[in-house]
Amino acid sequence: MQATGISWAPTEKTIAKAALDCAYERETAALLQEVQDRAKNVLCLDDLWQLHDFLSARRHDIEGKYEEDCSSLLFGLARLVKEGWLTGEELTGLSPDKRSKVSALARM
Amino acid sequence: MQATGISWAPTEKTIAKAALDCAYERETAALLQEVQDRAKNVLCLDDLWQLHDFLSARRHDIEGKYEEDCSSLLFGLARLVKEGWLTGEELTGLSPDKRSKVSALARM
Repeated sequence: MQATGISWAPTEKTIAKAALDCAYERETAALLQEVQDRAKNVLCLDDLWQLHDFLSARRHDIEGKYEEDCSSLLFGLARLVKEGWLTGEELTGLSPDKRSKVSALARM
Repeated sequence: MQATGISWAPTEKTIAKAALDCAYERETAALLQEVQDRAKNVLCLDDLWQLHDFLSARRHDIEGKYEEDCSSLLFGLARLVKEGWLTGEELTGLSPDKRSKVSALARM
């Protein structure tokens, strides 16, 4: 699927940015809550290093995920839809072609 | 200072092992408490990655610190005394020479 080299109208960039911000808030809030819950159940060093491993993985996963670079924006939005941090409806205002591509990528 | 190649009597090994266990319990309990306190104050991703950095540093620091290998035991005990996880008095029963070396190393 061709998802790079697509032009983004200013209003579409604004919509995509708002969607990224929204997903970021949701994912961050869920992660902070999960870490606080996990921290309460840390009873020994093994538990603590498991928490550390979890944070390492989540940090690696999240870093770069919210880039606003137009060349990767469709992939980023699709990933967030796939992971449940965004719904397709929240991308209303993007061209039908872009929404279709996000939807198709999210199903992969 | 010559701190390797030193012979350890069985009773000294027992004393050193008990001292390591005691320091381990103290340091671990303090670390778990600190992580739980820090986790309560994590309000955003930057805070979370600071907690992750803290855990990375502490894990690196602690791993290997409680080795019971005789060749490095004096250094290990001295480090724990220097860091406040053990007192010199808790090494009563080791030879005066060993206690003197631990004390000297802990002041370095």
